[in-house]
Amino acid sequence: MIRSVFLLVSSLALVPAAAAATDVVKVIKHPAYQKSVAVLDREHDRIVADIVTLTEIPAPPFQEKARGNAYLEMLRAAGLGDVEMDEEGNVLGVWRGTGPAGGPMVAIAAHLDTVFPAGTPIKVRREGTRLSAPGIGDDTRSLAVLLGYVRAMREAGVRTGRDILFVGNVGEEGPGDLRGVRHLFTKGRYKDRIKTFFSMDGTDGKRIVNGGVGSRRYRVTFKGPGGHSYGAFGLVNPMTAMSQTVVDLYRITPPKTPKTTYAASVTGGGTSVNSIPDQVYMEFDMRSVSADALAALEKQFLGIVAASVETENKARSTREGPISADPKLIGDRPAGGTPEDSALVQMARRAVEAHGLEPELTASSTDSNLPMSLAIPAVTIGSGGSGGRAHSLDEWIDVEKGASLKGMLPGLTMLLAAADLR
Amino acid sequence: MIRSVFLLVSSLALVPAAAAATDVVKVIKHPAYQKSVAVLDREHDRIVADIVTLTEIPAPPFQEKARGNAYLEMLRAAGLGDVEMDEEGNVLGVWRGTGPAGGPMVAIAAHLDTVFPAGTPIKVRREGTRLSAPGIGDDTRSLAVLLGYVRAMREAGVRTGRDILFVGNVGEEGPGDLRGVRHLFTKGRYKDRIKTFFSMDGTDGKRIVNGGVGSRRYRVTFKGPGGHSYGAFGLVNPMTAMSQTVVDLYRITPPKTPKTTYAASVTGGGTSVNSIPDQVYMEFDMRSVSADALAALEKQFLGIVAASVETENKARSTREGPISADPKLIGDRPAGGTPEDSALVQMARRAVEAHGLEPELTASSTDSNLPMSLAIPAVTIGSGGSGGRAHSLDEWIDVEKGASLKGMLPGLTMLLAAADLR
Repeated sequence: MIRSVFLLVSSLALVPAAAAATDVVKVIKHPAYQKSVAVLDREHDRIVADIVTLTEIPAPPFQEKARGNAYLEMLRAAGLGDVEMDEEGNVLGVWRGTGPAGGPMVAIAAHLDTVFPAGTPIKVRREGTRLSAPGIGDDTRSLAVLLGYVRAMREAGVRTGRDILFVGNVGEEGPGDLRGVRHLFTKGRYKDRIKTFFSMDGTDGKRIVNGGVGSRRYRVTFKGPGGHSYGAFGLVNPMTAMSQTVVDLYRITPPKTPKTTYAASVTGGGTSVNSIPDQVYMEFDMRSVSADALAALEKQFLGIVAASVETENKARSTREGPISADPKLIGDRPAGGTPEDSALVQMARRAVEAHGLEPELTASSTDSNLPMSLAIPAVTIGSGGSGGRAHSLDEWIDVEKGASLKGMLPGLTMLLAAADLR
Repeated sequence: MIRSVFLLVSSLALVPAAAAATDVVKVIKHPAYQKSVAVLDREHDRIVADIVTLTEIPAPPFQEKARGNAYLEMLRAAGLGDVEMDEEGNVLGVWRGTGPAGGPMVAIAAHLDTVFPAGTPIKVRREGTRLSAPGIGDDTRSLAVLLGYVRAMREAGVRTGRDILFVGNVGEEGPGDLRGVRHLFTKGRYKDRIKTFFSMDGTDGKRIVNGGVGSRRYRVTFKGPGGHSYGAFGLVNPMTAMSQTVVDLYRITPPKTPKTTYAASVTGGGTSVNSIPDQVYMEFDMRSVSADALAALEKQFLGIVAASVETENKARSTREGPISADPKLIGDRPAGGTPEDSALVQMARRAVEAHGLEPELTASSTDSNLPMSLAIPAVTIGSGGSGGRAHSLDEWIDVEKGASLKGMLPGLTMLLAAADLR
């Protein structure tokens, strides 16, 4: 469904997204682009310094404010206009293009939040060109690279046809559940103006995420009367209903294309070894690149939960009360995708190739999921250099200047192409 | 099997257990018994004071030593000989009979341990004749009543044919797994001399526990390779093997006679909602009054665990490694019983009836399980008065003198009958 929407969009001459973009080759040959690259080269140390500064301001899920405030001042200092923190905590700044006010925008975002809980010690350790600290690559480097772009574009006298919205957004990681971009696209002041979206996430400069793996996550609590394991034997047991749910879920063979998956992942509950539990829970993860396949799987799953409860209530005594199940949605990331043959993905491929890299198209779960689910062209790209061990305490990036700088250029090229470099 | 052993024992004139016991009616008419009762009556307040003192010395599982040391001094002060704490932590004291040294003994035990973890605030609250505190009825009152028996027997000049072993034992509750009486009957210095065993546990003076509900408890850890819920979908999941185990266990209909039960009770594990877990666990409880039925159920259960693992390893990919299960025995209480028509149970019934109470024969899991499993005649009896809410923070007993004293007398009568009051 989404695919057909995009084919339609890219064939309509009136839609500016595809029509007005500047060709990648023209961008790369443009003197203002080349001057921007020279500034990035000269300012590389400053970008690295910004990475360190921002990394050392903790930004756990739902506690991104301190880092957001710092980033806001940095965007302002870099020269953007209308710099603000929105109601959700996203930090926004506008690069004005030459077009009329209120026209279509290109947005580029890096996320402020990390997976690390409050209290995690965060101090950047430097060994040669390798910097280690929780969150440094995911996604703090990208925040600093966006600042570098703004300063370079400004100093190089870049002029774009369109406005560019620079964003440091909240809520990309796990429990944040894409709340930052969700606000941006459904409630924020620019929600109807953003026609192209780049999420800069991670380091790999040749990776283009054009598939948005959607997910629906549940924590299901199964309850019953409980009782003594010997004295009350024969009463319904919520553990049995929960187990039946897992067994029946794992009998489903989901489609391989579009790739659709499930997992019974985390469990807990029970009173003591000699008690029938009154409450147990399990967490389930369902994912698909197709919203329809995901919805179909979710429906099957909820049917299995209900049937398992019914089976247990029929199999044993409910004289002290029946089993019930309470499925609570704890994660909701819309599925979506920007087609391979769309103008945006084609352009992104050419931008990566133009810098001598081999593009890798993949599907993942990133901030781009949200615009993709709204049929807004979006891709997630890297900020350059290399890195590893994301989501672990020994997360690291390498800022060796050659690879670090080279990896920043596809992103800048795409951004200026999409924003119609003049 | 156990039943036939007992029928045999009680029909052999050479066996002293049944042969040498004094008739209950003779005991009750004996002047030394009557004087003992008068001392218990006069000393009732002192018994209550001992209950309070002992209750306020915490005795969590595996941390009974402080209370044990205090009880040791109290047994010594009451006038017993050979007072000691054994290697396991049981406190022992011997009442010498008139028979030759090293002859058969009667043992009577109350347990030192409570279910309450270290740090639980324990202060006896008194409202009229009602005393509230964790552990006060289970089983601290019994400890104090045994002291009362010793003092009363001594002052009354009681003479018994047999030695009596008074015991404050460790390890009756949950995780203790009967370690105190296990030591007493399998390693302790009196292990071959104890021919009759009374466990005094709880308050109800008319209850005679002659059925020992055995239990076998497992914590089964299911392991697998784990992985990303989306990227590694298709790999084996230990949650599925665990759930299959529960579903198949709950398809078993165990015998109603002898009563046999199971429970899937406590569970936990998993990494995060978006990971296939590498490890999950579940605790299972199996019980029966029949050792054979319990063994049969346990064998079925372990077969189900193995089959569930095999099923999962066939259903999904083991390319990153297979599922395995590690069933660890965490509880082992032998089943057993002292037959209704055994000399001991018949005598216990008469002792209860002689004090105007209606005997209630039941099965439970108490310290008597251990001697029962060794075919040593054993019953669990109450220490008198009334009480409730055992294992809860608002546990209470009522020490109103009439019911409290009356409830102590069946126990004293049985003890003196079994020890051959002269």
